[in-house]
This record gives sequence, C-alpha cells and structure tokens, in this order.
Amino acid sequence: MARSDTEARSGLEAASDSAAPALIDLAAGHPESAALPVDLFRAAAAAVFARDRSSILNYGAERGEGASRRALATFLAAEHGVEVDPERLFVTAGASVGLDLLCTLFTSPGDTVVVAAPTYHLALRTFADHGLEVVEVEGDREGIDARALRSALAAGPAKLLYLVPSFANPSGVTMSPERRLDVLEVARAHGTTVVADDVYALLAFDGATPAPLGWGREGVVNLGSFSKILAPGARVGWIHAQPDVLDAIEASGLVQGGGGLNPIPAALVAEVLASGAMPAHLRALRSTYADRARGLVAALERTLPDVRFLAPTGGYFVWARFPGRDARSLLARAHGLGVAFQPGDRFTLGDRWREYARLSFSRYPASVLAEGVSRLRRAVD
Amino acid sequence: MARSDTEARSGLEAASDSAAPALIDLAAGHPESAALPVDLFRAAAAAVFARDRSSILNYGAERGEGASRRALATFLAAEHGVEVDPERLFVTAGASVGLDLLCTLFTSPGDTVVVAAPTYHLALRTFADHGLEVVEVEGDREGIDARALRSALAAGPAKLLYLVPSFANPSGVTMSPERRLDVLEVARAHGTTVVADDVYALLAFDGATPAPLGWGREGVVNLGSFSKILAPGARVGWIHAQPDVLDAIEASGLVQGGGGLNPIPAALVAEVLASGAMPAHLRALRSTYADRARGLVAALERTLPDVRFLAPTGGYFVWARFPGRDARSLLARAHGLGVAFQPGDRFTLGDRWREYARLSFSRYPASVLAEGVSRLRRAVD
Repeated sequence: MARSDTEARSGLEAASDSAAPALIDLAAGHPESAALPVDLFRAAAAAVFARDRSSILNYGAERGEGASRRALATFLAAEHGVEVDPERLFVTAGASVGLDLLCTLFTSPGDTVVVAAPTYHLALRTFADHGLEVVEVEGDREGIDARALRSALAAGPAKLLYLVPSFANPSGVTMSPERRLDVLEVARAHGTTVVADDVYALLAFDGATPAPLGWGREGVVNLGSFSKILAPGARVGWIHAQPDVLDAIEASGLVQGGGGLNPIPAALVAEVLASGAMPAHLRALRSTYADRARGLVAALERTLPDVRFLAPTGGYFVWARFPGRDARSLLARAHGLGVAFQPGDRFTLGDRWREYARLSFSRYPASVLAEGVSRLRRAVD
Repeated sequence: MARSDTEARSGLEAASDSAAPALIDLAAGHPESAALPVDLFRAAAAAVFARDRSSILNYGAERGEGASRRALATFLAAEHGVEVDPERLFVTAGASVGLDLLCTLFTSPGDTVVVAAPTYHLALRTFADHGLEVVEVEGDREGIDARALRSALAAGPAKLLYLVPSFANPSGVTMSPERRLDVLEVARAHGTTVVADDVYALLAFDGATPAPLGWGREGVVNLGSFSKILAPGARVGWIHAQPDVLDAIEASGLVQGGGGLNPIPAALVAEVLASGAMPAHLRALRSTYADRARGLVAALERTLPDVRFLAPTGGYFVWARFPGRDARSLLARAHGLGVAFQPGDRFTLGDRWREYARLSFSRYPASVLAEGVSRLRRAVD
C-alpha cells in the first residue's frame, strides 16, 4: 500500500465501518480491520506459548516447522482439491517475500519478466527493484492472450512469466482452464518459469475454488498468502515449487541467516488451521465479499450507468472503465469529494488504462460502497 | 545456520542442556533454547491480543508501528547511551532482511562490497545471492585495517563496506574508538556506504556497551536484531539510517506489498520492552555468556594449550587457531568424536584461516563446553 493509504487508514479507521467516513478509500486492497479474527489469534497465541517451551523462540527450520507445513498442506489440499506434499511447501513472510526471493535468486538485472497486463502494481515495483525489464501482454476474459504471449517469448527470452491466475489484481479476471493449459504450454516451450501469485484464489464467491495454476509442474512456482483470507498483519504466505527451486531458496543468505522466515506467526496460523475454524471463516468471508461486490455493482449500475466493468466473481476488486474520462483527473476531484481509488495507469508501465479505476469492495459494507459511488458520481459530473 | 545445524538441533535439543549430549555442537551461533524467555512472550501475546482488537492483524505501517518504533528507540537510547529518533528506525524481520534489502536496493551485480576478513559467512552468501564482488580486508585487535581499507578503496570503488563492529562474528574483535573514526573517514572519502551489522553489541560481558558505529552519520546504516539478545525466532530487527535510505526501503515492492515486515512479533517485542524486563534479562544474559566464555577459555587453556585465541569480551564466539592443523580435517574427526565447530574457511572466499575454528559458547553451560574441548583434544591427538 502507498503511504497515502497508510495515512488515510490511521486517520479514518475508527469511522470507516459504520457511518460513511470522511474519506471512503476504495484504493486500498485491505480487509476491514473490525472483521479480522482477533479472537482466533488470541486463542492461537495462548495455545502456542502454553505448549511450546523452547524451540519456537530459537532459530527454526528454514522452510518452516514441519507442523506448520503439514497443517498448510492439509488446508490447501482440502480447499483446492489437489494433492499437496508438505515437502514442496516453503513458509514465507507473505507472497511479497516469495516474489522478492525469486527475483533475487533466479533473475539478473536486464532479464525480462512477462506480465499479464494490467498487473499488480507492487509486483511491477519489485521487478523494478531488481532491475528487470517488464514486457506486458494483454488478455481477455479468460486471462492473458496465449498467442500474444507466444509472440512475446519468440521475440526475446523471458526468465519469468508473472500471473495472478484467479480473481486477478486489478482486473478481477480468472484464467479459464483451457487458457491455463495453453499458457503453461507456451511458457514451457520457451523455458520461462511461471510465477502464479494466487492470493485471491480462495475467495470465489460461489465457493468453486479454481485449482492452482500448473500445480506440481516443472517450471511453475505458486505463491500463496493468508493476507487476503485471514490476516495481512500475520505476514504468512507460502511458496509451492519443485525441490530444486526450494533448495535454492533454502540455501540463500536471507533464509540461512534467519532460520525460518516467520516462525511465530506461522505457528499461530497453523494453530488456527488446526482449530478447524478456517472453513467457516472462509465461508463467511466469501459471503461478505459477495454481498459487498453485489452492492458495489448495483450502485455502479444505478448511479454511473456509463461505467463499464465485469461483475466480479471473487476477490477484492472491480476494474471499472470510465469512458472518455482520465482516471488521474477524476481521482483528484474524487479526493476532494471524499472518495479514493487506484487509477488504472498504476497497473502498467505503459500508457494504457487511463480511463480505468480499480475499486476495492473488501473494506466497506454495501451502504458505504453506495455512498462512495455517489461521491464518484459527483466527481464525474 | 546450515542444514546440518538444524538436524543436530532437532535431534539433540532435549539432551543438550544437562548431561553432555551425543554431539556438542559448537558450530551453531544459537542461544540455548531452554534459556529463551517464553514467559515474557506468553505475557506479551496475552497483552497484545487482549488490547488490540483490529489494526495489528491488518496491513500496518511500513516502517513498523509508531509504538514499536518508539519502544525500540527508548530501549536503544538507554542501552547504547545515544540519542535515537524513532523516525530514523525501520523495523525489520531480522538483520538478514535488512542486509538483503540494502543489497537489492543499493547495489547491482558486479558492484564491490568490502568486508573485514574474516567475516560472517551468511553475509557472504547474501552478497553472492546479489551477484556482488567481495573484497576482503584484514585487520587486527582493533578491527579492520584502515590503511589497507584505503588502498582497497583507492584500487576500485565499493558500494558497501560491511562490518560487524562489536564482538564480531567470527573473530570476536570489537573495533576501537580510534579505528572506528579512521574507518568512517576512509569510507566517507571514497563514497562507500558503511553497513554496521551490530547484533552482538549489547552482549559486552562487563556491560560497557560499545556505541553503535557512526550513529546518525551520513553514509552509515546500522543493522540490529533481537535474535542474539532476546529470541531469534521472533525475527525482529531494525535498520537505523538517514531518511533518504529509509524512504527508498519504504518505497520498495517488498515493503509496500506487505505493509510492515513483521508487525505481530514486533508488537510482542515492544510489549516485552515496555514491560521493563529487558535490563534484567540482558544482565542475566551477559552474566551467563561471560561464565560460559570463561569456561570455554579455561578448558582450552587447560586441555589444548597450543591453541591460540583472544579471550572474548562479549558476544558468542571464540576464534581459535590450531597451529599446523587443517580445521576441515579436524572437523571430520571431531564429528566422529561428538563435537562440531565452524571451520575458519567458511568465513572467507579466499584461502586463509584454514587453521582456525569458530567455537560458539552460547548454547551450553561450562561443563558441557569443557567436555566439548576434551573431545576436540581427542580429535587433535
């Protein structure tokens, strides 16, 4: 999140959940603080520190404690309906850490990474931090265009193909099963490693969780996180990859120097998983976000009928086009009227999506979202 | 820690603290698990999760929550006797994360980093992960040789000068005040940023804590950690630097994507700091480690009179020379006799210190250390 989000958050958190706040911040891809399961963490902390008298506070296993990885494997297998080997999992301090480690260890400055455009703006930041060249390939309602991807990879080799396969940030698009196979085949043929950053996959409103992209295949690294489904502040995520990739990550100075990237929060999350609370928690989250998405969609259709978007089927976002409008100019006016969003050009290094806005519905009930859309309408007028 | 350490740990933890264990592992730079303050963390967790109903589980402040940074500033000011501005602190998930971020953001592959040789082996790993060229400059009992450093920097520019200024890993050397000034001046004159990795500074056996190297100066970045003074598993450390450095770190994809590198453990540590327990805890640690160091020194003098070393005045390590012996060969025999250490060549990319061993005294009482030295003696014979 940008600094401005933080400022907005700290000033407005208290007011954000009941009456409409002074600033309705549809920019931040955050859950609603008041809805975060503090009770689950309190109970988990009591259990973990009562039981574990020693090792949790010392240097721990680099890939995450065995108990944490086994609990994670059981959870992922149940939710995704795939086989999960705990030995293929590496516990991280969030998907961002996984992506950063992949860039450090498997790329060099000047290497190319292909992304499905528009893409997660902070992944672009990470690629820039590592001096990588980004090639953007657009797509459609089924995901990145496989033919355009083939052309891009034929034009020059790419080390990584970065995708958000399900309920993508910012577009909301979920790759179709056929497209996934096509894209995996193109990447494989060109020796490009696929990085699937799938942090929204468990937030399908109808509960039909997409399978993880290319799960278990050579040349595919899956990144996951509890940030969107449990608590961002836990900073617990995972990498699922082939043994050679995990071995290289384990051998890194960063990992060796720490002995496990985040053992205490990982133990808390494992305790939450073991408590059996997650299925009901996820059902509640999906229901809440589905309600909010419906509320935002209804408000947009009612109040801003010219705005174009796909109704989301999961995740956090509506990717909305304001025909004939420049989203940056609109944002400046919107701020003055008490509503914020992410302008579309944040999600590209190019010059596209100037008419687009990413609207997050994760943080507010439908009534506040509707008021936000009313303010947007005034900004448009 | 290397994988072999982990294996030794998991198998032998239970037996390691009373009777002499099957393997006395003097290789691992770990605290003794049984001595880690689980009670402090249990109380801190109860307090944090009872009090904080929301924000701790959401995306938080990138540099660490204000309360965490203020508690850290108060602690560092009291312990080091320096002024500490919380705005110059950035809470990390350990010193390793700080070093990795500095490499990502302020170096490019092929850049040079100068180190005081011998140096922390996992820093060398991190530099290799980032494609950096390492130039080693030796020193004496006062630290890295300032004249040799000047020659090295005159021969070619270096982005970073990496130092462990106090109770260094592995040498145990603490830079003298004069040497610190000389080295800072040389680095400044050549435009080289000094990275002071000072994780042992608060473990002076006589309680006379060295000041942090170049505190508050332009061109100096101080890394710190609670790993050696409270609990490695917390993964909480800090960066102290000028605003431009902290701004760049805050703007990184890794940090922006996470919203605070480790907020829950940082809140637990802040709670421990606020409880007022740290001064007594540190006094007890210093006393324990001083006893253990004395025990190891006495055993070496008694049992291995040919071995050469400086008696440590703080930290975790004795850096011991076995004249005429190859430490790798010695280690192979020692393993069979139930004792391990880090061979000296781990701490260099060159061909020096083959007769040296790093012996950690942090993990065992004096009686076990003495038994370890007896086993070493048998390996030598």
